[in-house]
Amino acid sequence: MAVITFLSDYGTGDDFVGVCHGVMARISPETRVIDVTHGVPRHDIRTGALVLRRVLPYFPAGVHLAVVDPEVGASRRAVAIRCTDENRLLVGPDNGLLSLAAQRFGGIAEAVDLERSVLRLEPVSATFHGRDIFSPVAAHLAAGVDLGAAGDPIDPRDVRTLDMPLARIEGDTLFAHAVVEDRFGNVALDIEHEELAMTGLRLGHRATVEVGGVEHSAFYAVTFADVAEGELLLYEDAYRTFALAVNRGSAAQRLRLEPDAEIRVRQAP
Amino acid sequence: MAVITFLSDYGTGDDFVGVCHGVMARISPETRVIDVTHGVPRHDIRTGALVLRRVLPYFPAGVHLAVVDPEVGASRRAVAIRCTDENRLLVGPDNGLLSLAAQRFGGIAEAVDLERSVLRLEPVSATFHGRDIFSPVAAHLAAGVDLGAAGDPIDPRDVRTLDMPLARIEGDTLFAHAVVEDRFGNVALDIEHEELAMTGLRLGHRATVEVGGVEHSAFYAVTFADVAEGELLLYEDAYRTFALAVNRGSAAQRLRLEPDAEIRVRQAP
Amino acid sequence: MAVITFLSDYGTGDDFVGVCHGVMARISPETRVIDVTHGVPRHDIRTGALVLRRVLPYFPAGVHLAVVDPEVGASRRAVAIRCTDENRLLVGPDNGLLSLAAQRFGGIAEAVDLERSVLRLEPVSATFHGRDIFSPVAAHLAAGVDLGAAGDPIDPRDVRTLDMPLARIEGDTLFAHAVVEDRFGNVALDIEHEELAMTGLRLGHRATVEVGGVEHSAFYAVTFADVAEGELLLYEDAYRTFALAVNRGSAAQRLRLEPDAEIRVRQAP
Repeated sequence: MAVITFLSDYGTGDDFVGVCHGVMARISPETRVIDVTHGVPRHDIRTGALVLRRVLPYFPAGVHLAVVDPEVGASRRAVAIRCTDENRLLVGPDNGLLSLAAQRFGGIAEAVDLERSVLRLEPVSATFHGRDIFSPVAAHLAAGVDLGAAGDPIDPRDVRTLDMPLARIEGDTLFAHAVVEDRFGNVALDIEHEELAMTGLRLGHRATVEVGGVEHSAFYAVTFADVAEGELLLYEDAYRTFALAVNRGSAAQRLRLEPDAEIRVRQAP
Repeated sequence: MAVITFLSDYGTGDDFVGVCHGVMARISPETRVIDVTHGVPRHDIRTGALVLRRVLPYFPAGVHLAVVDPEVGASRRAVAIRCTDENRLLVGPDNGLLSLAAQRFGGIAEAVDLERSVLRLEPVSATFHGRDIFSPVAAHLAAGVDLGAAGDPIDPRDVRTLDMPLARIEGDTLFAHAVVEDRFGNVALDIEHEELAMTGLRLGHRATVEVGGVEHSAFYAVTFADVAEGELLLYEDAYRTFALAVNRGSAAQRLRLEPDAEIRVRQAP
Repeated sequence: MAVITFLSDYGTGDDFVGVCHGVMARISPETRVIDVTHGVPRHDIRTGALVLRRVLPYFPAGVHLAVVDPEVGASRRAVAIRCTDENRLLVGPDNGLLSLAAQRFGGIAEAVDLERSVLRLEPVSATFHGRDIFSPVAAHLAAGVDLGAAGDPIDPRDVRTLDMPLARIEGDTLFAHAVVEDRFGNVALDIEHEELAMTGLRLGHRATVEVGGVEHSAFYAVTFADVAEGELLLYEDAYRTFALAVNRGSAAQRLRLEPDAEIRVRQAP
């Protein structure tokens, strides 16, 4: 009996999440459902996809239900996916939400379209596919139903992927982007270790961080406690990606960062 | 071993919900407790009652604990109820909170007053009956204790019900009300399918929606994606009740809706 | 197989809490994890410690994981503690967070430093010890690993405690403090029953409550319903500590209370 993990943008103020738990408990009473988070910003597919990619390796392999679904009831497809690695199963809308996690687990080995799935909860509403399609399919898969019995097979290459901004280096300047922000105002960037190395910046030294034409000084540190309260730092976060933070403050506020904002990083003179 | 579902207005920012889970886990370690939501607006008995009525059919039959209790410590009764259908058990304050769900499951077959219940956690505080009365009673019932052993029998007709505004039709205009709002600003109305039909409005056509003397145009659609971003729509929501929404926006804000606001709906000319 | 309880200041808007659940589920799939709350104000060690002290007696004895950790990655120690009473195990940062709960359960019988624990999740990040140290240690302990195998033994007297303001009485005036506030604006004070008695104030009579030089009148009541809507009351809360509240309002707002604010309580003339 597999575990189900559940991520969405439903929030916890309403009954959306609870009802999905109820639907799954009716279908598969023994399955444990672990909430990843329901605080993904509303309709923010990319943040949902980035969160799934980085957190799922910390969860038991099983069925991974995810719902961030701005086009619910329109023409977007509903899918269930089996990944190449660990046979992890992903269930959700086919809008790119599942694509980064699928890449992380070796790509898509098998995919089905849930449009005519016999596992759906009838009558299917036009606006709450989390309850009527995704939760029942996830629960049946966790209870042992084969993926092939959940829907009609589709070519894995037809599952939608995401367009993401790409960091690039020009001279000694790294052109990066703010990709995801947590509630503390820490901002993850799309920088890999190797890319940062190309700027010549070294741990324990200062970087110049330019946002919207304004320059800030950031200390390249191991952790928050390496800088004074209120100071900006650049660090490798707990998921091995680079991030900006303010010790006991908010980097997002300090730098007035918008999602996808371009951030130029170079060694301080 | 029955499942317990748990709804309240406690929020998740404090330890109220956690402590109730702890009390239930001590009494009945094997029982699974599923949170419906704890985001019911503080003291809003009617929203709690409406949520319970519409969501409980999606949960396994079991013990349904609900606490929205502005009169805690005063003279309102504490009750446990067995419904006619599915033997569902409801536990909570006798202030109308449980009444709509009880109707949904065929009415009340049996009810007990928990005032002198031997299942309470002594000493009972004056302000936290969720912890000291409702959670322990729910846990003992889930563990198999008979309802009759939980309290003193009362006449089911003495359990309190709710006064609700009623939609009515005059000429070609439907006088409805805003009854409950979710965090996205979607607003459920007290309109049944048959009532809307009496206005002559047909799917795919426009309605005039009048709130506080101001007229708005709403498209009667199947789902959000049927209208442009920012446009108002009238639709049958996932619980088969009619609602107003703004695609990727908030109908509550657009129409400046207060709870119980009168909303006049008619065909657009 | 012990239950794990989990308290933190992570909030539920991000994936921090979910990932910790995932880590524990991988290590000890059968263990039930009950969330106490994740709404402790960010970095507020004292509120976390006070909440743990008052709520843990309502939870099954087991492993009690707590993370409020402003100095993560700096020199503060990570510890696991066995309490004298009920063999309760506490896991978290050694910054005072666990100290009040440990006192509540008879003091510390055994303590280990987790700095070099073999149970940690490698590589350990600098900023997310909840995931990499505390959750895996808690899960292994719940699965039956001995405390002695979790880390290096330390002297229980070296585990950090908290400095707390102390209420004192001068003449007929009690000098107390606001110690913790809930989301409803109810404010718990550091007053014991015996101390209040020394002011001569009796239940059902009025107290003068002075904050920042401004005097307020508060009714010493059993519960909210004893006073009119909007009126200030002093009462013994559900955890047997005294608190200020406004019936259907917020005492914190009414009195403009800051944390640790001095509050002078005496009989009204």
